Amino acid sequence: MIDLQPTPASADLARATLAFVRDEVLPLEEEHDGDAARGGEALRAHLQERARAAGVFAPHAPRAYGGHGLDMRDRAPVFEAAGHSVFGPLALNIAAPDEGNVHLLDHVATPGQRERFLEPLCRGRVRSAFAMTEPAPGAGADPSALATTAARVPGGWRLDGRKTFITGADGAGFLIIMARTGGSPGDRGGATMFLSPADAPGLTVERHVRTMDASMLGGHCEVALDGLFVPDENVLGEVDAGFRNAQVRLGPARTTHVMRWLGTARRAQDIALARAAERELFGSRLGDLGLARQLIADSEIDLAAARALLLRACWELDTGADARTSTSIAKTFASEAVHRVVDRAIQLCGGLGVSEDLPLARLLREVRPFRIYDGPSEVHRWSIAARAVRAAG
Amino acid sequence: MIDLQPTPASADLARATLAFVRDEVLPLEEEHDGDAARGGEALRAHLQERARAAGVFAPHAPRAYGGHGLDMRDRAPVFEAAGHSVFGPLALNIAAPDEGNVHLLDHVATPGQRERFLEPLCRGRVRSAFAMTEPAPGAGADPSALATTAARVPGGWRLDGRKTFITGADGAGFLIIMARTGGSPGDRGGATMFLSPADAPGLTVERHVRTMDASMLGGHCEVALDGLFVPDENVLGEVDAGFRNAQVRLGPARTTHVMRWLGTARRAQDIALARAAERELFGSRLGDLGLARQLIADSEIDLAAARALLLRACWELDTGADARTSTSIAKTFASEAVHRVVDRAIQLCGGLGVSEDLPLARLLREVRPFRIYDGPSEVHRWSIAARAVRAAG
Amino acid sequence: MIDLQPTPASADLARATLAFVRDEVLPLEEEHDGDAARGGEALRAHLQERARAAGVFAPHAPRAYGGHGLDMRDRAPVFEAAGHSVFGPLALNIAAPDEGNVHLLDHVATPGQRERFLEPLCRGRVRSAFAMTEPAPGAGADPSALATTAARVPGGWRLDGRKTFITGADGAGFLIIMARTGGSPGDRGGATMFLSPADAPGLTVERHVRTMDASMLGGHCEVALDGLFVPDENVLGEVDAGFRNAQVRLGPARTTHVMRWLGTARRAQDIALARAAERELFGSRLGDLGLARQLIADSEIDLAAARALLLRACWELDTGADARTSTSIAKTFASEAVHRVVDRAIQLCGGLGVSEDLPLARLLREVRPFRIYDGPSEVHRWSIAARAVRAAG
Amino acid sequence: MIDLQPTPASADLARATLAFVRDEVLPLEEEHDGDAARGGEALRAHLQERARAAGVFAPHAPRAYGGHGLDMRDRAPVFEAAGHSVFGPLALNIAAPDEGNVHLLDHVATPGQRERFLEPLCRGRVRSAFAMTEPAPGAGADPSALATTAARVPGGWRLDGRKTFITGADGAGFLIIMARTGGSPGDRGGATMFLSPADAPGLTVERHVRTMDASMLGGHCEVALDGLFVPDENVLGEVDAGFRNAQVRLGPARTTHVMRWLGTARRAQDIALARAAERELFGSRLGDLGLARQLIADSEIDLAAARALLLRACWELDTGADARTSTSIAKTFASEAVHRVVDRAIQLCGGLGVSEDLPLARLLREVRPFRIYDGPSEVHRWSIAARAVRAAG
Repeated sequence: MIDLQPTPASADLARATLAFVRDEVLPLEEEHDGDAARGGEALRAHLQERARAAGVFAPHAPRAYGGHGLDMRDRAPVFEAAGHSVFGPLALNIAAPDEGNVHLLDHVATPGQRERFLEPLCRGRVRSAFAMTEPAPGAGADPSALATTAARVPGGWRLDGRKTFITGADGAGFLIIMARTGGSPGDRGGATMFLSPADAPGLTVERHVRTMDASMLGGHCEVALDGLFVPDENVLGEVDAGFRNAQVRLGPARTTHVMRWLGTARRAQDIALARAAERELFGSRLGDLGLARQLIADSEIDLAAARALLLRACWELDTGADARTSTSIAKTFASEAVHRVVDRAIQLCGGLGVSEDLPLARLLREVRPFRIYDGPSEVHRWSIAARAVRAAG
Repeated sequence: MIDLQPTPASADLARATLAFVRDEVLPLEEEHDGDAARGGEALRAHLQERARAAGVFAPHAPRAYGGHGLDMRDRAPVFEAAGHSVFGPLALNIAAPDEGNVHLLDHVATPGQRERFLEPLCRGRVRSAFAMTEPAPGAGADPSALATTAARVPGGWRLDGRKTFITGADGAGFLIIMARTGGSPGDRGGATMFLSPADAPGLTVERHVRTMDASMLGGHCEVALDGLFVPDENVLGEVDAGFRNAQVRLGPARTTHVMRWLGTARRAQDIALARAAERELFGSRLGDLGLARQLIADSEIDLAAARALLLRACWELDTGADARTSTSIAKTFASEAVHRVVDRAIQLCGGLGVSEDLPLARLLREVRPFRIYDGPSEVHRWSIAARAVRAAG
Repeated sequence: MIDLQPTPASADLARATLAFVRDEVLPLEEEHDGDAARGGEALRAHLQERARAAGVFAPHAPRAYGGHGLDMRDRAPVFEAAGHSVFGPLALNIAAPDEGNVHLLDHVATPGQRERFLEPLCRGRVRSAFAMTEPAPGAGADPSALATTAARVPGGWRLDGRKTFITGADGAGFLIIMARTGGSPGDRGGATMFLSPADAPGLTVERHVRTMDASMLGGHCEVALDGLFVPDENVLGEVDAGFRNAQVRLGPARTTHVMRWLGTARRAQDIALARAAERELFGSRLGDLGLARQLIADSEIDLAAARALLLRACWELDTGADARTSTSIAKTFASEAVHRVVDRAIQLCGGLGVSEDLPLARLLREVRPFRIYDGPSEVHRWSIAARAVRAAG
Repeated sequence: MIDLQPTPASADLARATLAFVRDEVLPLEEEHDGDAARGGEALRAHLQERARAAGVFAPHAPRAYGGHGLDMRDRAPVFEAAGHSVFGPLALNIAAPDEGNVHLLDHVATPGQRERFLEPLCRGRVRSAFAMTEPAPGAGADPSALATTAARVPGGWRLDGRKTFITGADGAGFLIIMARTGGSPGDRGGATMFLSPADAPGLTVERHVRTMDASMLGGHCEVALDGLFVPDENVLGEVDAGFRNAQVRLGPARTTHVMRWLGTARRAQDIALARAAERELFGSRLGDLGLARQLIADSEIDLAAARALLLRACWELDTGADARTSTSIAKTFASEAVHRVVDRAIQLCGGLGVSEDLPLARLLREVRPFRIYDGPSEVHRWSIAARAVRAAG
């Protein structure tokens, strides 16, 4: 029967998370101007220690590894609360790409891989990266363009290629690398995932691709793979099952992005509402002017719709349904809605909105890339429509 | 715990309804060009008899009066299935305003009123109307402008005033009339609801206000009240409690509008998809062209978001929460989304789309007014924002 | 030097046209509910006689044939004034497709053809049609799909095929027919234009494709060509030059569409403004409410932008520039802007807006197809982008 | 007669400007990451010397002071060419607020003021600022809230108050200050403009309000006025004529903003087109994919419409018409269109688009504030609609 009541465990953790983020994370975000690189690993260690102390650390991780073991539905309000600060996800150890990698490893890793890679990741001892995207014309919006090769060598595989936009790579303890074990660029099969310590010979983080967002520790990096050796035991999942297993990660990863970014949008709207409730303009309260109300209402509608679509995606993921369409729809709508909400909040705050006296300009630079990361809106729309046409054909 | 699984009863009835609508209602819609007035009461009687035979009649009505007794969540997919034809709601006896009046009477009527007015309405023996709106500058987008008066007379009340856009008034068995028992236009209190047989002296349906939609039997009428006597036993709810009780009707009524119109939109999208799947253009299938896919995906997203917001509104109504914001958001978003979906379907079908060779032009004329009926989008946005600002103030 | 001052001749004629349309045409539009078919040829004859009397007949036609000989820039305000009524263009003899056919014949016809076809068309003695579009999968959004054939026979050509959406065909004196003299469907060459009296054997107007618009006399028809003989002297332009010559007609024809429809949009906005200036709501004048002002301002902006883009297209056409992009942009923007303006006017008028007490619902049904006629927005966008990419490539 | 042909002088200067900007300015923009503060006055001096050498300096200034003396119509393509780099306007000495101040002084200044303030400003010897905006609840979107006072003292005036968002104040040679010589905040009259050297006692630039844009030398500053003495000879225009004279500056200033920002948008679109023409995706050229074409076409339409509206505003300003509506419309549409164009360019470039490997992210941060600077879109819409309603009332 249809029920939208969150479990008490989720509601309680969301409340605790919001209080923690407001009290302990926001001041540090302010201090570092939302730039994770300024704080580095020391910031991460401090934030995560505080989150542990507050009992809100790792809501997503298996209980056996110190987490709360929440399913997707229960994560939604907790992650949104964490997203209230751009450092909140880092504090709770639920930032991309670690959070998605936990999910992937939890579903696909062997017992040995769980112990060596998953547990330290859950506990915040290391960070990780997911190395799929390549410089054009390699894998990107079109994953089948994958060009990095993995060649059979005694005892394992030899990887050669070049990756880019690898979030968190600088400083990561290990990477999950997608490489082609069969076929050629353009083929939809023949990819395999490999686990590799970041300090393995032949793996080099060459540079940061500077982007407008700044909250992700370890940046977005170019990574060179020059004869990187990966032993057989570090193959993640079956050989040639890389694209299929990537789906295991993809749907949930884009869905948790929605959760976190909803928190950002909600914060922006709260800032705008606080101003609308107090600022006088043309002899009225700003929030009583019709044109301001239009902006406010449009954002309330956007937030409600994004949250409602998110719930559908979570429920489908939790119940094992084919959630490709619902997660694509949630991500596409939310990424655009979140951007609109922050943009309207800026408009409501006028000159202050584009200044650093408020955090809105920073939030805007954080959310803009979401319409591109994890698949540009255009690619999601392409796929959503393709499935709809196929079903009708 | 969050669960989006409809009950089996609801799912089964939705399936049966869709089959019934496709097999028995759509051909009659086609035959009458979607114009209820062409079929009149004979059409209604026939459709409702067929719905009874199919076991899909009155999903909303109390079981005691021959209905299925579904709550709002369970109604949603059934009403959407009914909305697949613009005559579907008429067939199931869930068209506006009867459906909303059933809801209102079920909550507010006395036992005697239930027997005299509610039961025959549930069973389809009569139709009804809800007479609130008045010609400018009376009650409309702003209900507090109510100008119709009800004066105390021995044994009851004497009503004088003028109503307009009274849906279904022509041919209705009875009307629920909102009139002012206290205060003056502009005051937020002092309104009372009255039940009156349509043939009572002093109540005249003066003319139809012709509108672009045509599916509502009994039209949208101007009604004159010239000394209409209403005995005390036909006062609906408490005296002076009219505005409060109107809320009982308003939230659910706008929510069921969303359900029905979603069916219209889904039908339009299905027609467009069928064409996209078969039509060749520029050497490709229409549905494989990027610009067509954009239209298709945008409509899938709109439908999903409208449905997700609807569920939230239903759940809040069913659980007794203050659903003013969620129902306003659902109605505002859905009324605009539904219009966009039908409009895009037309665009996808090109010249055929604006022709009568397809039903899309008819559907467009049916859904356009939804952005105005039950409160224009602008008024809903005004209220949504007002509540958000108040909460922040 | 840049100058936006219309010539006095154009300004005077625009003023006279607006006065004529308001005084003499609008009452007849009202009387016939904007449906040209109700008035038929008698209505046309009457309106054109009145326009001649008012000195506003045929602003576009060569002076030699009784017209004012205006160029595109000078036509713009006159046609917009005519468009104030959906019957205005009929009155001035500048309705589609006649107006475009005058333009085409004036550029391409032989002296004999001018005398036989152009002069009577200019003088309003006959109507005409332009028969290019075919039922799917024939010529439509993609003209190169042209399937109608013209085979060489002694003394002329034999045409076979099927046309649809042929505006004005029913009652036309002659048709300009596009048929394939070479190549096969999909080829970009090999088309030729033919002039044929409507009563020639083998040419049959089979049925009206009923559409949501109603102002075009002669409807949108299906036309069958079964062995229609066209003598050599009625070949219009060179053999195999049909697609090229269609361009001669296309750019100006879509540009004059913009002019006329701008008049419709301006009228809708005027109706909305009149109401905004007088209607009281929530204790304010409607036009003083912020949400109403947003609608009003957005429409003023849309109208100004459409008119500004139109001027660019006119100037390029008049000066012989390659106006494909500017006319496509003007048509695409204006068709969407005009629709938005009428739609917003309806929203501003609330329930009245969707009723027949105002003409807005009728105007909406007139302008919606403009986003499809003369090339759907999607096809124009496709071409606009293709040229931009090509220029950058 | 309507003519859209730019004068040869304007066309030649636009061409020369574009070449100059590409060759000499863009490399410096790259080097300084578009942040004028990094280069400071040395950068300005260098850029302006190069512009003088290239013959493109000061297109707007009177010939007597070394400028080209172009009217608004002739400026449009030149300023757009300058706007191709965010440092272009600085190089040509046409950046805000100097350019607007030149215009204002040229219309209002006394001969002595011209010599002392206007000439050095035209020649690039000093920069200037325009100090109107105040911290809330002072002058801002609503200028009549002006709170800074100017009190009569012997030989001149004593100014007290606080200004904020004063562009270019840090390092300016002089400021034009708006202060209240009569009435009180909320009154529409009683303001006067004063000229003051920046180093006058009592005038302090207190801090930079950091904003998302970075191209404006001298930043956006808070300025304290504590008993600033302004001698009578430095009153600019009549006493109490401040609001009226501000109009002299306002219309042209917002119009030249449009010109410059159009250049930014055109550059972004060019970058996107270059990528669309070469990048392969899903086996096609990016620019051949329908969803990319939609983005490209929408931006071409936006650019064309913004440019067309700009021309109308220029022509009205040049011919002395009441250009309040046309400049408001041009500014409102263009500020939003320019933002959309840059945003779409980012979307077309995917991950690269949000990276610093392309300048698009920088351009986005430059153009976002334009929807707020010189009057937020909401305030312009409010005024546009108010005038439309008034005309209809």
